Amino acid sequence: MTDRVAELLAAQPKDMTLMADFYLDPEVYEAELERVIYPNWCVAGHVSEWPESGDFRVFELAGESVILVRGDDGELRGFANVCRHRGSRVCLEAQGNTKQFACPYHGWQYGRDGGLVAARSMPEDFDKSEWGLKPVAVGIVHGVVLVCLADEPPSLDDAIRDLAEPMRAFGFDNLKLAARQNWVIPANWKISVENYQECYHCSTAHPEYARMHTLTVDYRRREQLQTGMLGKLAAAGLPDVEYEYSDYDTPDGQMGYHYSRTAMFDGYLTGSRDGQPVAPLLGELQGYDGGASDFTFGPFSFMLGYSDHIVSYVFKPVDLENSSCEITWYVRGDAVEMKDYDLDALTWLWDVTMEADKAIIRDTYAGVKSRFYEPGVFSMMERMESNYVRWVLRELESRA
Amino acid sequence: MTDRVAELLAAQPKDMTLMADFYLDPEVYEAELERVIYPNWCVAGHVSEWPESGDFRVFELAGESVILVRGDDGELRGFANVCRHRGSRVCLEAQGNTKQFACPYHGWQYGRDGGLVAARSMPEDFDKSEWGLKPVAVGIVHGVVLVCLADEPPSLDDAIRDLAEPMRAFGFDNLKLAARQNWVIPANWKISVENYQECYHCSTAHPEYARMHTLTVDYRRREQLQTGMLGKLAAAGLPDVEYEYSDYDTPDGQMGYHYSRTAMFDGYLTGSRDGQPVAPLLGELQGYDGGASDFTFGPFSFMLGYSDHIVSYVFKPVDLENSSCEITWYVRGDAVEMKDYDLDALTWLWDVTMEADKAIIRDTYAGVKSRFYEPGVFSMMERMESNYVRWVLRELESRA
Amino acid sequence: MTDRVAELLAAQPKDMTLMADFYLDPEVYEAELERVIYPNWCVAGHVSEWPESGDFRVFELAGESVILVRGDDGELRGFANVCRHRGSRVCLEAQGNTKQFACPYHGWQYGRDGGLVAARSMPEDFDKSEWGLKPVAVGIVHGVVLVCLADEPPSLDDAIRDLAEPMRAFGFDNLKLAARQNWVIPANWKISVENYQECYHCSTAHPEYARMHTLTVDYRRREQLQTGMLGKLAAAGLPDVEYEYSDYDTPDGQMGYHYSRTAMFDGYLTGSRDGQPVAPLLGELQGYDGGASDFTFGPFSFMLGYSDHIVSYVFKPVDLENSSCEITWYVRGDAVEMKDYDLDALTWLWDVTMEADKAIIRDTYAGVKSRFYEPGVFSMMERMESNYVRWVLRELESRA
Repeated sequence: MTDRVAELLAAQPKDMTLMADFYLDPEVYEAELERVIYPNWCVAGHVSEWPESGDFRVFELAGESVILVRGDDGELRGFANVCRHRGSRVCLEAQGNTKQFACPYHGWQYGRDGGLVAARSMPEDFDKSEWGLKPVAVGIVHGVVLVCLADEPPSLDDAIRDLAEPMRAFGFDNLKLAARQNWVIPANWKISVENYQECYHCSTAHPEYARMHTLTVDYRRREQLQTGMLGKLAAAGLPDVEYEYSDYDTPDGQMGYHYSRTAMFDGYLTGSRDGQPVAPLLGELQGYDGGASDFTFGPFSFMLGYSDHIVSYVFKPVDLENSSCEITWYVRGDAVEMKDYDLDALTWLWDVTMEADKAIIRDTYAGVKSRFYEPGVFSMMERMESNYVRWVLRELESRA
Repeated sequence: MTDRVAELLAAQPKDMTLMADFYLDPEVYEAELERVIYPNWCVAGHVSEWPESGDFRVFELAGESVILVRGDDGELRGFANVCRHRGSRVCLEAQGNTKQFACPYHGWQYGRDGGLVAARSMPEDFDKSEWGLKPVAVGIVHGVVLVCLADEPPSLDDAIRDLAEPMRAFGFDNLKLAARQNWVIPANWKISVENYQECYHCSTAHPEYARMHTLTVDYRRREQLQTGMLGKLAAAGLPDVEYEYSDYDTPDGQMGYHYSRTAMFDGYLTGSRDGQPVAPLLGELQGYDGGASDFTFGPFSFMLGYSDHIVSYVFKPVDLENSSCEITWYVRGDAVEMKDYDLDALTWLWDVTMEADKAIIRDTYAGVKSRFYEPGVFSMMERMESNYVRWVLRELESRA
Repeated sequence: MTDRVAELLAAQPKDMTLMADFYLDPEVYEAELERVIYPNWCVAGHVSEWPESGDFRVFELAGESVILVRGDDGELRGFANVCRHRGSRVCLEAQGNTKQFACPYHGWQYGRDGGLVAARSMPEDFDKSEWGLKPVAVGIVHGVVLVCLADEPPSLDDAIRDLAEPMRAFGFDNLKLAARQNWVIPANWKISVENYQECYHCSTAHPEYARMHTLTVDYRRREQLQTGMLGKLAAAGLPDVEYEYSDYDTPDGQMGYHYSRTAMFDGYLTGSRDGQPVAPLLGELQGYDGGASDFTFGPFSFMLGYSDHIVSYVFKPVDLENSSCEITWYVRGDAVEMKDYDLDALTWLWDVTMEADKAIIRDTYAGVKSRFYEPGVFSMMERMESNYVRWVLRELESRA
């Protein structure tokens, strides 16, 4: 840890928003890459996106590029997209199916298992077995594919155990990607994630979201709706469970995770313009309980489980001053576009919401850069954000 | 002061143009923000731009954003455009009229006096009175509105006293904004201001300006024209005064200021294409004396007082490598566009002149970046620029 | 040498590709400018581009701008394009003919010999003779014009001596610029030059080039073709000589240089689409031997001598993360466009080849930035690149 980062950690006031330099200092960003970003899992997609052997997709994070490819043995593996000869990107396509990856520069060829298969004109003592693509950790939680750039990633065991029941209910083993969009947000990644962590802003900034989701109101006013929904859970085929092991409450050595279900306002069966279903019921669900579930997989990946579709949000740093949010909409595996669901209806809510989020995040970053900015007080509706910030600070500190 | 800045100050040769690093080193720029930019006044407009209570305009300087708003008590006040909760820009519009400023992020509301009026869901011990917008100093010199980002701005008293007579003559209490343009110049701010400080370049770079303004010629050749103009001052209603308290000659603790009047070439009554009036005579003026007045308000703001209109030039840093110049044309308060003045005729001279200035400043910055650049000798027509440079160096040194 | 550069030099593994920081660290780039870029010669063109006294061209390198002008005495001279008064670029045109260079800012005038001719309003003790444009070294090797930004450039004597015979054969004293293109490549300059140093990539990335040039194959397979060509050299009017004094093998105090001739595949008389001539035979040549010659002039400038045209490649840094390659096509001095040569036919090969090079260089730079990149092993077809890299490291080390 550089002196500068230690200095900032010591100066940060407790239980307040972060000091500006945590969003602006390149040394903080370098420390975050090493201690917060690379050592943690990040969602890369769903297993259904790699149905066949040889299917590949490129996963990008903070300037790194990872090839995710299904092997001949059916296993999904990750490899750094960097040729071992001269450093070139090996795979230039975002997705596809291939027998081998041939580097476009000098033609070195790598198999689906990352092994170096061919390299012309190398010295006699050159041993191909030592020059395969470097492996990157890939994990799967009931169909959700995760990537971690560290050598020793956190264990997924607890998440796999506890999320089994709710993920089975939503049929996570039988999903289909319906749409995906990547938003680039001109702000440090933490402001983007923090914004997702609190719904204090929803009533001000998201009128569409606010008319159906109850996180916009104080928890006391939400109580009655919540009780009503809980009574319908069993009939709808949903478990009455809740897990909060994310961020500051992450179990030691494990990936943080979270599951909970929250009532929507009356008349809203799902997150759609009129509250009516926009796709077939997911998995084992038997009906609509009027709720929506929050899933968390590690510190950067979130899913919102409506009864008829799942929306995934993955936040990543691009560089110190830019971040991205990839939003993916999943429907039931056998749902057919135009017949069972309409893309515009499915994506409407989070299109308008993300557009607004991008603007408020950008305008906040502009203000945070001001010499007049200083840490503020969290509202009572920003406890998750406060918890997240404490976690980031702890990671920066403890891995020093 | 960092060692680097001290080193440069020690190495700078006397009475020569600045060493390249004063224009290129990020540490110099940081030091300038703290010691030169923020502690000094900068013109933000004229009081007529805020006629009513609730009228606001956003003033920007070196990445900072300030809300200038007229209060219910008629007072003009400045506030940092940074929400005290999460840091967002509070006011996103450039100008308007409002009862309250509601932050677009979480809806915190601030009154016209900057006080925090409403904030939902805050902890019980949260005291709104402590979380108003941070005040920024606003000053007024006979109708000219100035902003200073420092806690203890220089006094305006001397400027108010000495400029009272000439500003009354030009009717500064009765002006109207006719046009405004903001030029972004790809060069360090000092090269932009230095360029304004000397007319050595005018005969080479500004043929339009040079055929009417006599600053293009040596002061000895200007003498005769000047004598002729001085004889007409009284009849025209202009005072025969001159004040030179700007830059290196700024009185201690005061804002620097300057007033002088200079003859134009014969046949030019004002700064227009053919020398003929382009708007009604200003204030108490009784006729044309064939001169133009220079006003200076602090180190970044200049005005050129023709008998029938005033042109204001405000220079600001954007960042280390970019600056801006806001040009505003003012006419008499009761002048009516199309009837009393024509915008094209009014703005012609400084449109062409600024276009040329932008090019020469850019090409100078390119050359200053060269390893072959070294400080040069000032001509006898660049004494004001030399004086300005000495002032910048003194401020960097003395506030260390 | 900064500690950082010394650290990197010590850590670099022998005979492997460079560690990433040599391509990414601003301190390395600063050191390279001082020790590798500025102290070495770079080709600026051919004497035929300055036929008359007063003819000038501006040469650019790593942000520097140099005026190259033919004097009244017929001598070609170089001057830093930086006004000695205020630092402005003096010459804004890329090429032309002029009696004097008048600075567009304040009108200082410089003669064709760089001397200051006129400067208005300067102090009495100002001595014009001390304020001429700063000279920059210009050298000529049998018609090839070179520039060096250092005070004491390497000697050109050895190159002039050894290259006399081959350059006379190609008629370097009688060339004509047919076309020129400047490519900006988004990668550190070394990746661009290294790419030119090896043809290991040619068979993968350059199908057009690979079907005629034999450097794409291992030297053992090239042997037979080479023997065939050598037998035709004398008849074609070409000397059977070879010089390899470039990069790591540069003689002390001399500019590095290289000359060799390599057979093309059967049926290719020159580097054209169908192998047929695209311009008149050069210089003293009597026929086609089926070969192509490589010339090297210092570390950044290369020429490919076909029997009927010469292609010049000059690589320059733009900044740490960008470089450029200027490609110029020369034909015999009396060749007439449309009649003796067709531009599309002439430039086709290196248009498509450079387009492909730009892509592979860019994708390599992306991979080199990865935390997974580490130095790789050179193939047996990359010995020149390996030699070049050793030279760069030695220069960084020895000039410390």
